[in-house]
Amino acid sequence: MNKTIVFHYVSRATLYGSALFLLPALVSLYYGEKDIVLTFLIVAAAVAMISTPLAIIKPKNKKMYNREALVIAAFLWVIFPLLGALPFYISGAIPSFVDSVFESVSGFTTTGSSILSQVENLPRGILFWRSFTHWVGGMGVLVLLIAILPSSSSHAMALMRAECAGPQVGKIVPKGRNSAAVLYIMYAALTLVLVILLVAGGMPFFDSVCNAMGTAGTGGFSVRNGGIADYDSTYLEAVLTGGMIAFGVNFSLYYFILVRRFKDAFKNSELRAYIAILLIAMIAVGINIYPVYGSVLKCIRYSAFQVASIMTSTGFATADFCTWPMLSQMILVILMFIGACGGSTGGGFKVQRVLITYKSASRYLKKTVHPNSVKLIKSDDKAMDTDTVHGVLNYLVIYIGILLVSMLLIAANNGDFTTASTSVITCMNNIGPGLGNVGPMSNFGFYSDFSKCVLSVDMLLGRLECLPLVILISPSVWRKKF
Amino acid sequence: MNKTIVFHYVSRATLYGSALFLLPALVSLYYGEKDIVLTFLIVAAAVAMISTPLAIIKPKNKKMYNREALVIAAFLWVIFPLLGALPFYISGAIPSFVDSVFESVSGFTTTGSSILSQVENLPRGILFWRSFTHWVGGMGVLVLLIAILPSSSSHAMALMRAECAGPQVGKIVPKGRNSAAVLYIMYAALTLVLVILLVAGGMPFFDSVCNAMGTAGTGGFSVRNGGIADYDSTYLEAVLTGGMIAFGVNFSLYYFILVRRFKDAFKNSELRAYIAILLIAMIAVGINIYPVYGSVLKCIRYSAFQVASIMTSTGFATADFCTWPMLSQMILVILMFIGACGGSTGGGFKVQRVLITYKSASRYLKKTVHPNSVKLIKSDDKAMDTDTVHGVLNYLVIYIGILLVSMLLIAANNGDFTTASTSVITCMNNIGPGLGNVGPMSNFGFYSDFSKCVLSVDMLLGRLECLPLVILISPSVWRKKF
Repeated sequence: MNKTIVFHYVSRATLYGSALFLLPALVSLYYGEKDIVLTFLIVAAAVAMISTPLAIIKPKNKKMYNREALVIAAFLWVIFPLLGALPFYISGAIPSFVDSVFESVSGFTTTGSSILSQVENLPRGILFWRSFTHWVGGMGVLVLLIAILPSSSSHAMALMRAECAGPQVGKIVPKGRNSAAVLYIMYAALTLVLVILLVAGGMPFFDSVCNAMGTAGTGGFSVRNGGIADYDSTYLEAVLTGGMIAFGVNFSLYYFILVRRFKDAFKNSELRAYIAILLIAMIAVGINIYPVYGSVLKCIRYSAFQVASIMTSTGFATADFCTWPMLSQMILVILMFIGACGGSTGGGFKVQRVLITYKSASRYLKKTVHPNSVKLIKSDDKAMDTDTVHGVLNYLVIYIGILLVSMLLIAANNGDFTTASTSVITCMNNIGPGLGNVGPMSNFGFYSDFSKCVLSVDMLLGRLECLPLVILISPSVWRKKF
Repeated sequence: MNKTIVFHYVSRATLYGSALFLLPALVSLYYGEKDIVLTFLIVAAAVAMISTPLAIIKPKNKKMYNREALVIAAFLWVIFPLLGALPFYISGAIPSFVDSVFESVSGFTTTGSSILSQVENLPRGILFWRSFTHWVGGMGVLVLLIAILPSSSSHAMALMRAECAGPQVGKIVPKGRNSAAVLYIMYAALTLVLVILLVAGGMPFFDSVCNAMGTAGTGGFSVRNGGIADYDSTYLEAVLTGGMIAFGVNFSLYYFILVRRFKDAFKNSELRAYIAILLIAMIAVGINIYPVYGSVLKCIRYSAFQVASIMTSTGFATADFCTWPMLSQMILVILMFIGACGGSTGGGFKVQRVLITYKSASRYLKKTVHPNSVKLIKSDDKAMDTDTVHGVLNYLVIYIGILLVSMLLIAANNGDFTTASTSVITCMNNIGPGLGNVGPMSNFGFYSDFSKCVLSVDMLLGRLECLPLVILISPSVWRKKF
């Protein structure tokens, strides 16, 4: 482990990251919230002051492998959510520090689970900060920093890979740093389009910006107590449904469209599976909830929005699906596991991994029946290397292991099985709401501090896809010299 | 696919299997239940009459590979539970045919989930038959037939492998047929010891035989309405706790003890993990339920019994764990997944598979940190071949896939999330009780016929560890010529 490069990148990223607090400070200034402006400025200044002297120390050794990148990502994803909690706590918006951390982790990881039951009484700057963490966390803190700051290209690619979701993160353009920039430009452009569409539908400008950031990051924090349902507009719900689905797509496909490689974009097997699952789930849920609403239009409206929100791991809600028939609830729970596409801002196990595990298992069955058959696992006509397949299978093991251990820890809080298990499922997959007492109309405030900490760790594990954090705490990384 | 050998073995096994109905006929005769004697004799005669002309057809081709063995196992595991349902239905003990099939599948697969709320009013012959299906299904219908009937040794081994649980089924003695015989002799001897211990504790002889068979097969059907709790005896519960644990152990270890290879028996890593998990769970549950009972002795008694019962997949209950604190319930749910040892009569994912997936995942993590490290996965000091590891990982994928699809199908029945999910978990892992409305003091009678069919298939999939049934219905097995 090259500790000096880790130290260098972590402190430098923290220093530059302090600038993130200036945007909500401006928002507060605009709305005349002087205390909040001060809060953000103090936090920004404190972070900058502490990290500046550390960031100017030059690393002795510039070598960076995967493990260094993973450890850097892990450190930053512990530091940023902690720093992000400071405005909530210092401003008094959230009186408990653990609650502030939970809210901040939920924001950065784009989970959207909240401990707040009321949000409308919060200052605008704080509300903006909550949604802004979604936007930054969605595409990635590191990716943002790589995009705007100088760093060597090989470092950039390793760092991106450590933070981006999905089993195969490829370069979009030859240079890692440019890839990050391209990603963020497309991300910002799409977010802007969403803001315009929302404003056009009559949503207040502030709400539009916050909800667009929540949608883009597939987060789910809302600026109204009643959430998106409060606007009660079919147009706005349709725009957000489309928005959520769009941000659940692998961003390299947008690049393909940009450079007119349409075939690569639309022949993508993950995209097709993603759309197919969405459609099937929407139709199934729509039919299943017909007795509840008794109107085809309402069924389409509510089913489409909820299905898109859960599968893309956004977590917005316009209907209390806890009152829906069990089949619809179970469909939503299974969509939580599947999640969005790899390389998107969405969470979950990812459609691509589901496809790979499916192909791997069916090849295994074929091999059992026809022992001499040799069959490669293909993805978009390219044979997939066995390392990727085994990586996905082992990731499944780690994922399930963490899920079960977390369920045990949350069960110590007592409560019912539905709440305990879906709390973990929704946090680990970065969704937002679960079933039972953590349904879309409830919040996570009732949990003990211990449980909130466990769920916060789950959100981080889910966002970073386990590896970086597991490696961070594994002694062999630190003990051995390389 | 060599269809003639499949046809030959299936019809021959069915013919010989008809003899199984004679034992309960004798029991009914002893208790003077004339109608029941007649029921069993009619079923036995009908089965024998239909299968005899089919069984005498000689197979044209005697070649048998794994796929043939798997298909034979799958066919027999569909045929036997269906035939086993006939006595319930014909005698009128269970008026609905679907219910009869559910009860019979639950018996053969050693699940022990029941649709009956009252059992004491059933004829003795029927009660015996219920428990006898546990005993036969536990070690395996095929294994029993191989043990007592002539068949070539290579065929015997393939057939055993198709039916036995666990990722690695090895020969105990050089000849497959002898392995089966050795297994069944040890199995019968251990069951006999259990009967003697139970009778010595004052349990009526009939109850002792039935409960011993239910314990040996890790089944869980009881002959009292109140289950094992009805006897209210610490001695009997202790004996059954020990019995359940003993039958959850890989049977080859008993053979090692028999031939004085003590090192091989006690140095077995699966055994150690199995005992460790049992002890940790017992202590954790015992401490957690202390506020409920307020007595250390009661906590030990109830915790030990329930933990052993669930982990070995027996499903007996002496306490309603649905009223326990959530932590204890969650521990039991996780034990349901883990299950007993490979090569035992118990169900679940199996301790050995849990160990293999754990080792595989930790090797994967190490490889990510130290890309050049070469580390083999070892089991009991022997390096494990990668095929076994990949087999286990792919099995996990298939297992989770079936679990999730089943949950969806059961959710169509409506009801709550806890009941729907734990029904599938308990049936798929061949346990017996779940949480919510399928807790240890409830039964599965309220489910729709459709749900009962889904759960029956889950029990079969769990018992046969998916492969045989999946292969049975895969068209490529039947289409292609070999």
